[in-house]
Amino acid sequence: MPDTHAPNAAAALLPAIRAIVGDRGLLTDPADTAPYAQDWRKLYTGRTAAVIRPANTTEVAAVVKLAAQAGVPLIPQGGNTSMVGGASPTEEGSELILSLSRLSQVRAIDPLDMTMTIEAGVTLKAAQNAALEAGCMLPLSISSEGTAQIGGVLAVNAGGNNTLRYGNARDLVLGLEVVLANGDVWNGMRALRKDNTGYCLRQLFVGSEGTLGIITTAILKLVPKPREIAVAFCAVPSAEAALDLFGRFQAHDQAAIQAFELMSGLGTEFVLKHIPGATLPVGQAAPFYCIVELATPRPNAGLRGSLEAVLEGALEAGTVVDAAIAESEAQRAAIWKLREEHSEAQKREGASVKNDVSVPVSKVPAFIAGATAACEKLMPGVRAVPFGHMGDGNIHFNLEQPIGSDAAWFLAQDHAIMDTVNEVVREYGGSFSAEHGIGRLKPYMMPDWRGGPELDLMRRIKAALDPANILSPGRVIG
Amino acid sequence: MPDTHAPNAAAALLPAIRAIVGDRGLLTDPADTAPYAQDWRKLYTGRTAAVIRPANTTEVAAVVKLAAQAGVPLIPQGGNTSMVGGASPTEEGSELILSLSRLSQVRAIDPLDMTMTIEAGVTLKAAQNAALEAGCMLPLSISSEGTAQIGGVLAVNAGGNNTLRYGNARDLVLGLEVVLANGDVWNGMRALRKDNTGYCLRQLFVGSEGTLGIITTAILKLVPKPREIAVAFCAVPSAEAALDLFGRFQAHDQAAIQAFELMSGLGTEFVLKHIPGATLPVGQAAPFYCIVELATPRPNAGLRGSLEAVLEGALEAGTVVDAAIAESEAQRAAIWKLREEHSEAQKREGASVKNDVSVPVSKVPAFIAGATAACEKLMPGVRAVPFGHMGDGNIHFNLEQPIGSDAAWFLAQDHAIMDTVNEVVREYGGSFSAEHGIGRLKPYMMPDWRGGPELDLMRRIKAALDPANILSPGRVIG
Repeated sequence: MPDTHAPNAAAALLPAIRAIVGDRGLLTDPADTAPYAQDWRKLYTGRTAAVIRPANTTEVAAVVKLAAQAGVPLIPQGGNTSMVGGASPTEEGSELILSLSRLSQVRAIDPLDMTMTIEAGVTLKAAQNAALEAGCMLPLSISSEGTAQIGGVLAVNAGGNNTLRYGNARDLVLGLEVVLANGDVWNGMRALRKDNTGYCLRQLFVGSEGTLGIITTAILKLVPKPREIAVAFCAVPSAEAALDLFGRFQAHDQAAIQAFELMSGLGTEFVLKHIPGATLPVGQAAPFYCIVELATPRPNAGLRGSLEAVLEGALEAGTVVDAAIAESEAQRAAIWKLREEHSEAQKREGASVKNDVSVPVSKVPAFIAGATAACEKLMPGVRAVPFGHMGDGNIHFNLEQPIGSDAAWFLAQDHAIMDTVNEVVREYGGSFSAEHGIGRLKPYMMPDWRGGPELDLMRRIKAALDPANILSPGRVIG
Repeated sequence: MPDTHAPNAAAALLPAIRAIVGDRGLLTDPADTAPYAQDWRKLYTGRTAAVIRPANTTEVAAVVKLAAQAGVPLIPQGGNTSMVGGASPTEEGSELILSLSRLSQVRAIDPLDMTMTIEAGVTLKAAQNAALEAGCMLPLSISSEGTAQIGGVLAVNAGGNNTLRYGNARDLVLGLEVVLANGDVWNGMRALRKDNTGYCLRQLFVGSEGTLGIITTAILKLVPKPREIAVAFCAVPSAEAALDLFGRFQAHDQAAIQAFELMSGLGTEFVLKHIPGATLPVGQAAPFYCIVELATPRPNAGLRGSLEAVLEGALEAGTVVDAAIAESEAQRAAIWKLREEHSEAQKREGASVKNDVSVPVSKVPAFIAGATAACEKLMPGVRAVPFGHMGDGNIHFNLEQPIGSDAAWFLAQDHAIMDTVNEVVREYGGSFSAEHGIGRLKPYMMPDWRGGPELDLMRRIKAALDPANILSPGRVIG
């Protein structure tokens, strides 16, 4: 579906939109709209005649109805933290930005139902805090949570560190309210754990990145707040050993694992070198490290004993060469800092090319070995620094420029590097976009990876739900 | 979409279908086809020119392509255990049954990935057993599991006792292979925990009851086999107390709860009266009973201690008046027998009208009180025997005929009773079909409950994916 929308149509619609949302709900000064028109990675600097900021669902619906009648495309936007330009308008200026940030109420929390009713514009962090205050936990955590908003988090099916236990964003959604492409409102706000009454519409909107409808309100599942958390940092001789260690924790008590992260020795070296205060919690460097975090709402659960029991067996088997268990909240934070500062350390070390990929969990070691070898063959001296969510198979397979090479020369080869990594991803039945989505950055890859009947199905669904092609046109399915 | 298909077209297609599936793959003798044409509840006795039994996906696809070209409707069928006639052909004889039962291989189990690759025709019980042999558990259990097949289980998004912990069938699906309405095959067989590459098609097919595509193969999530299971039978003074008890177990260790079931005192009386060998594990009768089952793969987890700790607090608070903890596998089975024999005991007591409904968990007590009062007002003397999955809000709200009343007179008022119950369900934001689906029995209720933009969306999706309306026409969305 080509973008045949005209910039003038967008501008012509503004008086009618202002009549709906009022002065406070419409930004038209370029100084005001510019921050909304650029994505935070600064991959795209778009133009727009206005940022529309409705105050409630009724206003959103009225705006969409107008836009649909006029054929003016809308780009729904939450916290504008997309990694793939999913919330950025094009350079033509034909698209209007629809910001959900004024829908900012946590409407209700029910600790017995373990549900939260929440509007699209609440930041993930504010939602987490509201849940904690009610004695519950919203078990979704991503690095942009201070800025990312619930509507966007659901629209892109965000993942993060705790997916292996609690699932992705889509696994936390019970109910949705969605403004459809014709301005109708679908009220699917049901707080039910079982409801087999027709097609599962909510899972179609979750992950559609704003191309099928605009999420305005949601009912999310919560879990009890953990009372006990135990964290270990483990030095392992290989990625295979890391996988074996994960299997041991799964067999011991899968339900207690809250995170299982992998880091390469080199990536960890970068953190120790570039990040002030970072220290290695174990006595000797190793080819790989794992962070395992156990958590439970049960009192006196003895999670430390669980860690010790599993690690003892792993040490005996040679699966782990050394390990440190956090004795305090400060030690726990210090361990996690080694993981969280990976991107920053890579940036300070030099230029890097990022791949957000996934494979089946059992294939992570083979994938890392294969992708490392393929990249080194493509570019001798390139430095692979894989890290990420081993427990769910999502590896951030980043490549650091060869020592002494020119950064611009290196970055100019980003597509060749990404293609090389992705060929190995494909070999193991993986995904070229595990948690970041497609947005504007990756629709060109869809025909190759999801072509044939799959992309055809997606296009038929898009045409059925948004026949005028006004919701984020060209994104996701191209 | 009216059924405008002609019986003759189906018969005319048989030679071409025989050429695809061979003699072994085609049943045309009415003596052979009759069992497939009647649902197990005997609500529908349909007619069909043939039961097609393809041996593999390629044959399924070729048959569907032929049927699509000829405009002949197909009714996909697994174990034929639908509660709502979802797999039964109409009386006109214009529909052919497509049985998936010969796609019967468990292709692979990976205990590290915790996945199972399985064909549509494997029974749920066989799938459970295969998982157990590999040291894992397929955590889905329904009463028809010995007959129900994986394809059907996924097509209807089956629920059961363990939904509160492991989710419904849809929560266990990672990958799918689906034959589409035009005979194309969608290969979505990905064993990935994270994959954000376009719309979530698998969740559209799961729960669509065969109206959007035919599931031929799946990749399912497994969990580790429990090493320790602890079960308690609790007498409680009210449904409110049962809810309070559930909240206590949630707060203590949500991740350990594997089932939390509710039974009325009267329904339990029926079991004790009609089922040989049934005994009450506690000293005194009570208005309601709960069964709570904890399970963990952790060794020496002390689940019995967890039960005792929570029950002690609940006894002190008056939430529980008496409780018995199973000391052996035999005692555990005896406790579960009280729950599992509820339907049979009701049958022996007399005629009953069944409602498979759900409300938010916190609303279960108010719903039970409201629906009981409404039914007693409608029909003095009617006996409410609610039971079911309190932990996920799914209550089987069954009504037993008044003592001494005429069974036929009672059953003739089934619609009035169901409507009365459903009005209370609606009051609490519930669902009129929690786990049994819509099939042929309940499409008439869809406009009232899911009408407006929701049913309109479903119809647009159906038209987009099955424009010739050949897959289970008239089911689900009418």
